[in-house]
Amino acid sequence: MPSRESLGKGQVERIGVSGGMLKQTSPRGEVIRNADIPDHETAAKLVTEALTDSKKGVVSGISDITGVGHRVVHGGEQYSESVIIDDEVMAAIDKNIELAPIHNPANLSGIRATQAMLPNVAQVAVFDTSFHQTLPPSAYLYGIPRELYDKYRIRRYGFHGTSHRYVAGEAIRYMKRSVENTNVISCHLGNGASITAIMNGRSIDTSMGFTPLEGLMMGTRSGDIDPAILFYLLERGYSSEELNIMLNKKSGLLGLSGVSNDLRDVEQAAEQGNQAASEALDVYAHRVRNYIGAYTANIVRVDILIFTGGIGQFGVKMRERICRRLENLGMVMDYEANQKVGADTGIVSTEYSPTSIVVQPTNEELQIAIDTYDLVSHV
Amino acid sequence: MPSRESLGKGQVERIGVSGGMLKQTSPRGEVIRNADIPDHETAAKLVTEALTDSKKGVVSGISDITGVGHRVVHGGEQYSESVIIDDEVMAAIDKNIELAPIHNPANLSGIRATQAMLPNVAQVAVFDTSFHQTLPPSAYLYGIPRELYDKYRIRRYGFHGTSHRYVAGEAIRYMKRSVENTNVISCHLGNGASITAIMNGRSIDTSMGFTPLEGLMMGTRSGDIDPAILFYLLERGYSSEELNIMLNKKSGLLGLSGVSNDLRDVEQAAEQGNQAASEALDVYAHRVRNYIGAYTANIVRVDILIFTGGIGQFGVKMRERICRRLENLGMVMDYEANQKVGADTGIVSTEYSPTSIVVQPTNEELQIAIDTYDLVSHV
Repeated sequence: MPSRESLGKGQVERIGVSGGMLKQTSPRGEVIRNADIPDHETAAKLVTEALTDSKKGVVSGISDITGVGHRVVHGGEQYSESVIIDDEVMAAIDKNIELAPIHNPANLSGIRATQAMLPNVAQVAVFDTSFHQTLPPSAYLYGIPRELYDKYRIRRYGFHGTSHRYVAGEAIRYMKRSVENTNVISCHLGNGASITAIMNGRSIDTSMGFTPLEGLMMGTRSGDIDPAILFYLLERGYSSEELNIMLNKKSGLLGLSGVSNDLRDVEQAAEQGNQAASEALDVYAHRVRNYIGAYTANIVRVDILIFTGGIGQFGVKMRERICRRLENLGMVMDYEANQKVGADTGIVSTEYSPTSIVVQPTNEELQIAIDTYDLVSHV
Repeated sequence: MPSRESLGKGQVERIGVSGGMLKQTSPRGEVIRNADIPDHETAAKLVTEALTDSKKGVVSGISDITGVGHRVVHGGEQYSESVIIDDEVMAAIDKNIELAPIHNPANLSGIRATQAMLPNVAQVAVFDTSFHQTLPPSAYLYGIPRELYDKYRIRRYGFHGTSHRYVAGEAIRYMKRSVENTNVISCHLGNGASITAIMNGRSIDTSMGFTPLEGLMMGTRSGDIDPAILFYLLERGYSSEELNIMLNKKSGLLGLSGVSNDLRDVEQAAEQGNQAASEALDVYAHRVRNYIGAYTANIVRVDILIFTGGIGQFGVKMRERICRRLENLGMVMDYEANQKVGADTGIVSTEYSPTSIVVQPTNEELQIAIDTYDLVSHV
């Protein structure tokens, strides 16, 4: 861990439905198991077997494992950093199910299954929300009756925290700066997308809100809309469920272009003259620019603008589309450098740009491993 | 009219309910009529009588009136400027009732009543939306399925257009600049509030959207929220009607502070140590700053930042609260000048500020009169 070396990686798919699969890759070879995986207990067993496989395993035995890190979506207002999991933490994750009804139960189930398999190993929870617990009330309160916050805890939580924290740390290191006097705007643009303003290592504003629906336009999510659009459509016979699915699954690049949620497909269609696709790209870039500007207005001086996530890392043209016009904010892209850097870590701004624009691939798994190592080492 | 002189002003209140009242003030004295006013026809008759009153009237007779200007809330996508009203215009206002179900019917009724009283006088419609018809698709399209635009015309329309247009024109004149090479961000902060980005005289983005609910936090309106908050509350038994009323009438400064929708009351409560009031002020300023930044990111160079509306003109402390930290955007307030200018027209930025910050009282009635005069003079 101190050298941040990855011994291998893997994933389990289709838990609880037919056609389950485990896949593990490492320098020692690939492990694939095709079998129905009814629950997280079975998954945890398969993972442990694969990890300790005598031929293609990545550790020689269970005793080599000193910590397990879990990505947990919602830590509510309880956790502003990663923690070793105990009963209190389990209760908090359970309590936050109402804020993340799909993810937190699965996270709990995964933790319990791993605890059962590895009862003597420390388990660590790394929350998607915790990095944003430093937001001030001016950024996390909505302009709605205050009792909705008091009663339902409706506020901006923000997500993608592990990614924003990782890329900010890496980019600051890459630029040979110190966290304490560096201000960053981090654009995580994937199928889900969010932007975070980070002052001296602390998140001070972020575009996802009470849920991951708010903020930027995404692959299939609308991002910001006039909330009254929902009242208008409810009056015209749409149900709340339909609208929820529409805004989360059928909107964004997909809904507006009518082509795809994948940026590459939309770009191709636009090049072939599809006007809806072309406008969807313009809307996408416009909204990213708006948030970059909004956060610049609240940071005294922006040192680094980071692009990460599938679109941020690989979408060379989209990065250019976003950065055109940002000169007024002191963010001057070097369009040739942007082409040349491509999907690698690198600076894509001119030498004289007051803000450095940096492409920084994300690695949430590594950040989770680092947090786990740090916590377990200090036990 | 060429000298922009106001001969008098007046209003009719409580049409269709008991306790109706007409009030007209002019240098010749005050006219007050207390009577039930069942409909707009009666109101138009009272207005005409008051205007031509032999003692306190402002014109000597009906023949002195050569044009009547009407504020019409929603012009849909048909009108990008004010127009002389004919059958086609009436049909368009009627067609847009579904976009402005409360205002457009009243506007139509007022126009018909005035036509009946003054059949030979040109009537002019000045739309709240028309100034924003120059928005590009990147600013007016939402990230939702495209058929919602095609079928229901759901898009950003923007409002307060007459005010933004008026103050931008006046501020440009005040600064001795020309419209063609001046870029403006105009903050209309009243009980309703919106911000508009204006490049070379054209609105290119604005914070109110499909309805006046979107954008800034206002006196009683929430402005931007995570749309998923509505799904969350609908699931917990709130009705669509309740939520519509909540977001429009019980949110904003009022809902968040728990004190009042009036900035002065909230400021007073905050000074007396009310934390909710203090946080409501912070949220208000934060969101205005965010929009100023967002629009700065899309304008190559901002020449003038305008404050207008009840809060923009009179809220000296709020202007200061908003402008703290905007130095990074090239907007440097002179806090003493801000105090000194108070509610008058004046420059409140430092001499070296790249962007001039200007307080400019609005006057929508005058803009409507100017539009009417211009159109009628060219018939």
